[in-house]
Amino acid sequence: MIAAVAETIETGDAERLRALAGDLHEADLGDLIQALEPDLRPGLVELLGSAFHFAALTEVDESVRLQILEGLPTQTIVDGLRELDSDDAVYILEDLEDEDRKKILDRLPLPDRAALVRALDFPEEAIGRLMQTDFVAVPPFWTVGRAIDYLTELGEDGPETFYEIFVIDPVFRLEGTVSLDKLLRSSRTAQLKTVLNDEVRSFEALEDREDVARQFQRYNLVSAPVVDPENRLVGVVTIDDIVDVIQQEADEDLKALGGVFGDEELSDTVRETARSRFPWLAINLCTAFITATIIGLFSDTIERMVALAALMPIVASMGGNAGTQTMTVTVRALTHRELGRRRIRWIISREMLVALVNGVALSIILGGVAAAWYRNPELGVVIGTALIINMVVAGLFGALIPITVHRLKFDPAVASGVFLTTATDTVGFFAFLGIAAWWFGLW
Amino acid sequence: MIAAVAETIETGDAERLRALAGDLHEADLGDLIQALEPDLRPGLVELLGSAFHFAALTEVDESVRLQILEGLPTQTIVDGLRELDSDDAVYILEDLEDEDRKKILDRLPLPDRAALVRALDFPEEAIGRLMQTDFVAVPPFWTVGRAIDYLTELGEDGPETFYEIFVIDPVFRLEGTVSLDKLLRSSRTAQLKTVLNDEVRSFEALEDREDVARQFQRYNLVSAPVVDPENRLVGVVTIDDIVDVIQQEADEDLKALGGVFGDEELSDTVRETARSRFPWLAINLCTAFITATIIGLFSDTIERMVALAALMPIVASMGGNAGTQTMTVTVRALTHRELGRRRIRWIISREMLVALVNGVALSIILGGVAAAWYRNPELGVVIGTALIINMVVAGLFGALIPITVHRLKFDPAVASGVFLTTATDTVGFFAFLGIAAWWFGLW
Repeated sequence: MIAAVAETIETGDAERLRALAGDLHEADLGDLIQALEPDLRPGLVELLGSAFHFAALTEVDESVRLQILEGLPTQTIVDGLRELDSDDAVYILEDLEDEDRKKILDRLPLPDRAALVRALDFPEEAIGRLMQTDFVAVPPFWTVGRAIDYLTELGEDGPETFYEIFVIDPVFRLEGTVSLDKLLRSSRTAQLKTVLNDEVRSFEALEDREDVARQFQRYNLVSAPVVDPENRLVGVVTIDDIVDVIQQEADEDLKALGGVFGDEELSDTVRETARSRFPWLAINLCTAFITATIIGLFSDTIERMVALAALMPIVASMGGNAGTQTMTVTVRALTHRELGRRRIRWIISREMLVALVNGVALSIILGGVAAAWYRNPELGVVIGTALIINMVVAGLFGALIPITVHRLKFDPAVASGVFLTTATDTVGFFAFLGIAAWWFGLW
Repeated sequence: MIAAVAETIETGDAERLRALAGDLHEADLGDLIQALEPDLRPGLVELLGSAFHFAALTEVDESVRLQILEGLPTQTIVDGLRELDSDDAVYILEDLEDEDRKKILDRLPLPDRAALVRALDFPEEAIGRLMQTDFVAVPPFWTVGRAIDYLTELGEDGPETFYEIFVIDPVFRLEGTVSLDKLLRSSRTAQLKTVLNDEVRSFEALEDREDVARQFQRYNLVSAPVVDPENRLVGVVTIDDIVDVIQQEADEDLKALGGVFGDEELSDTVRETARSRFPWLAINLCTAFITATIIGLFSDTIERMVALAALMPIVASMGGNAGTQTMTVTVRALTHRELGRRRIRWIISREMLVALVNGVALSIILGGVAAAWYRNPELGVVIGTALIINMVVAGLFGALIPITVHRLKFDPAVASGVFLTTATDTVGFFAFLGIAAWWFGLW
């Protein structure tokens, strides 16, 4: 398929290309674009002409999208954007350089341009960026029958898809919503004001998209009105965009916990990837020097009892693992807003208790093995004690660090890992070497 | 609020409780239940009586749900389940013991019982568990007008909410779907067969819920028909359940990468939590012994040059971090099905290159600092070389391990971390101590 399409683009056979790719769903077309050699991509768009649905550009990585847009004449982009719902057009425009974006916007008809400029003025995290400005709004005194007939007359006009209509007063203030199934199930003679749902979950355009996504999820919403501070209807957000937000948030948390920035994409170059990952590694290097300093304090101890050098990473790594477990659970609870003030105190003590229970169990195993291995029961006691201490500290910090980062209004997934391993390494080496030095009199 | 509700339950004031909690959305009611003392929870359900919407039980943790169901008379549960859509009823029934479930099912009317038993027969991961068996299906020769009138007559009967109607032949085979907005926008006199969408994305009941969720996301679906192998319509899945699947999958990946089992819940007891986390820690302890053995091989070397003991964790930890970055990106790409065969070879080489680039940069810093600190330039060269080796190996294994785990049909998020740190620790200590021993002739 990809090879056939590539060949068709090279030979410029528009008809064959339309036969091959003209009927693809935008998601599949996006995949096809992504799989093509970069220099063939703009050719595909131009050759497909009006059969190319620009929504496919919302399905490819940012770097691929920018590369295609750079390779296309402005007029082609303008024509493509006019076919799109406003939220998709915004998505395509938002990553462009200001200058390129202005060139495109200037050629759009005024009403389209005004809607897009307004949407682009919202901050990137605001729900206003994701809203559609095309919707169906009707007055409360209309009957169900009249609303149905109005929709029949609407035909192909209006939004591409919708799941509810909005009931507004003369100055566009939202009075309620009527879902399409509710509309269809109501008597034709009933007035809309008697069938509308007036307990509407509406959002202001500046609200954070994550918060809105959580509400969609919580209340099983499929679409929701966006209003201005005077409760005037300005747009609608739909579940398809919200699903993307949910997925994106989850991806960002996953990546952040793994020490990768959220905007790293698979199609980034080696240079971009290396550069974006370097800061985390550099920070980790700095904290590793702290660990090295701690160990350095005990060089005499290690010199006299070199077994300690072999055993010390065990204590540190077990603490790191236990702490990561706690941190993972805590970060997840924080991002899902599952932690009230009362529960925070409770989760910290629970995590420390869990760490204590597992610490005792594992320290018996570790202490036993170490004692047998080095034929030194006292060494077993020392390493077992150090393990319990480090695991309880790991439980404490594993919960405390993300909670503190969250209180300081940062994303708890981003920086917690670095702080945590610094804590568990430092405490792990210090506890083990310190107790050993004191116990064996090697200080 | 919680205190007032608790007091009302204790005094048994049904009217006041209905005033306080009767109008809550099921999600908010679920939160309220979760916040109450366990022994008050069944009382809330009984006191609210018919004002308690059993859907709230789908919003609480499994352990809380089971505790409430155990505290309720069977008839109360039966009455509550009858009010629910089949997918919610299945969700509540599926965690019960076989015996308790049978007692409840036996008291349900036959059609409800049959649908639930059939749904519960599907494996837990199958989409059949999430489907609704109540839907609107009409013949293709009906006109749009007749379908609309049929829905008006349906009134409150039929599914609680729906977004499309299904067009079927006399033996229930699916011919297509008509979304409600499409139905409303079409001419009343048009036959359904002329307006239906016949490129339907339908699913078989046994398909994996994750795969279905990916399709929903990819094609922006809001609901989709479920069919049997003969393409006969048996149910419908809706986006609200799919959103939960997406969220759950993301959570499971996040937890698995953090060494926590996916079914751990915040409401679990200390004992349950400790027990569920223990296996990972025990595995980590075993692999830590491998690391200790490697270091033990070099005890003579360390004894003669104790600086090595302080520096060796740096090499291991940097490798661990770089490897985790690669692993995170790879796991994410695997779960999103972004990796074809050609891309796999490409991602492995890209990750090794990225690791090499950052490894060289960081080894200059690390080597420089180590050389200055210990006034030993050769030590700088040794640790720098070891770092580059360990980081490239980390890049290789960080990609290779999850890809291999995935090929073996396991979840790449679950076990990759343990293998990876074993690899980076082993290689890190071995490379550094080995090169040092050879370079300084301390073998």
